[in-house]
Amino acid sequence: MNKSAPKTAPKAFIFDVFGTLVDWRNSVTREVAATFPNHTIDPCAFADFWRARYQPAMERIRSGGRDYVALDDLHRENLEDTLDHFSLGDALNDGQRAALNSAWEKLDPWSDVVEGLSRLKEHAIIAPCSNGSIALMTRLAKYGALPWDCILGADLAKDYKPQPAVYHACCKALRLLPSEVMMVACHNNDLEAARAAGLLTGFIARVTEHGLGQTIDLEPESDWDRVVDTIGDLAC
Amino acid sequence: MNKSAPKTAPKAFIFDVFGTLVDWRNSVTREVAATFPNHTIDPCAFADFWRARYQPAMERIRSGGRDYVALDDLHRENLEDTLDHFSLGDALNDGQRAALNSAWEKLDPWSDVVEGLSRLKEHAIIAPCSNGSIALMTRLAKYGALPWDCILGADLAKDYKPQPAVYHACCKALRLLPSEVMMVACHNNDLEAARAAGLLTGFIARVTEHGLGQTIDLEPESDWDRVVDTIGDLAC
Repeated sequence: MNKSAPKTAPKAFIFDVFGTLVDWRNSVTREVAATFPNHTIDPCAFADFWRARYQPAMERIRSGGRDYVALDDLHRENLEDTLDHFSLGDALNDGQRAALNSAWEKLDPWSDVVEGLSRLKEHAIIAPCSNGSIALMTRLAKYGALPWDCILGADLAKDYKPQPAVYHACCKALRLLPSEVMMVACHNNDLEAARAAGLLTGFIARVTEHGLGQTIDLEPESDWDRVVDTIGDLAC
Repeated sequence: MNKSAPKTAPKAFIFDVFGTLVDWRNSVTREVAATFPNHTIDPCAFADFWRARYQPAMERIRSGGRDYVALDDLHRENLEDTLDHFSLGDALNDGQRAALNSAWEKLDPWSDVVEGLSRLKEHAIIAPCSNGSIALMTRLAKYGALPWDCILGADLAKDYKPQPAVYHACCKALRLLPSEVMMVACHNNDLEAARAAGLLTGFIARVTEHGLGQTIDLEPESDWDRVVDTIGDLAC
């Protein structure tokens, strides 16, 4: 594994967000539990079911079966399905559904993230390259005090990672070459796609993103350009 | 003049940047002077000539006579013309021209801006709605410590203000209605267009943007929703 820094420091670092920077699972679970204080559902199972519909919903768009729709709307559609699955189809009115959908704007950063991004920002441009929309990433940044220089990601390309257009749109928006930009993620497949698109790659393990029984992405699965233990290590 | 706050506080404030937040004229003059220490040109006249080509260059795109090109590229083309005009066509190599073009990324904020934006950010989303590109606005924000929540503007619409598509693209990116967003500018025509697009409007006078002899935009020319003396006043 090559853990040393690339010869030329990246001019920008762009980040996967869900999982890599924020603990979506425990955060969404908390919001679900607060929304249904008197129900006997397992809020963590609700969060997992909701999230499990994330990739299939994007896949329809990536494959050309549907025009681009922002992730906020996909989350809302998936919420409807999830409510039905848990026999809660009548439990919330429209405003309450919108409020619960905004759980995705209230995700707690892992403990190393805010300090690490703040350090890194002194050396380079930092931005999310998430499948979340500009609106979602902006509100999430306000919630978690993520000190982004700008918000990049799926909205710019009108497509979803791991489509190369998303990585390329981020580089183009910054007027940088892919080789000047490092994609940072805890998901090996995100980095595979970023590397194929010409970007530098940085891996950080988040071994409890999916809970204590997590079986995937426990370690780097290729010779990524950087492998770090904390976000702040990228500044070294 | 209605100087009172609108009944409902805006959920986002989006800002014109050149002139409204940063002193482009003195800043570009400084960079020009540093680039030509041994020449007898008037660096301020150079800056004014360069900037005078800004609106005509965008107008070709607004009118459909040319596809969207980022402002960085228009600035560069206008720089070539300006160098020729001042008989400096042979004075700089390509790298030096690129360096001088980045003068637009090194513009000093007016004295009230950083503190004012920081206060406002506690209450609402703040973002530039400039004709500058995401790349240009990102680097300008790093230079001047402008604490944006995200970078909006011309790049999202692939068109230039005062085209309504630019204001609408900013609102849409935030998933807000135009009536929930206030456009803030020191240029009355920018606010006219924003109001026509359905946005709230905020005016701040910058009476030396064009130097001591400035004759335009010395005061509000309509009943804008807010008229403020400092950016921080928008938070009141």
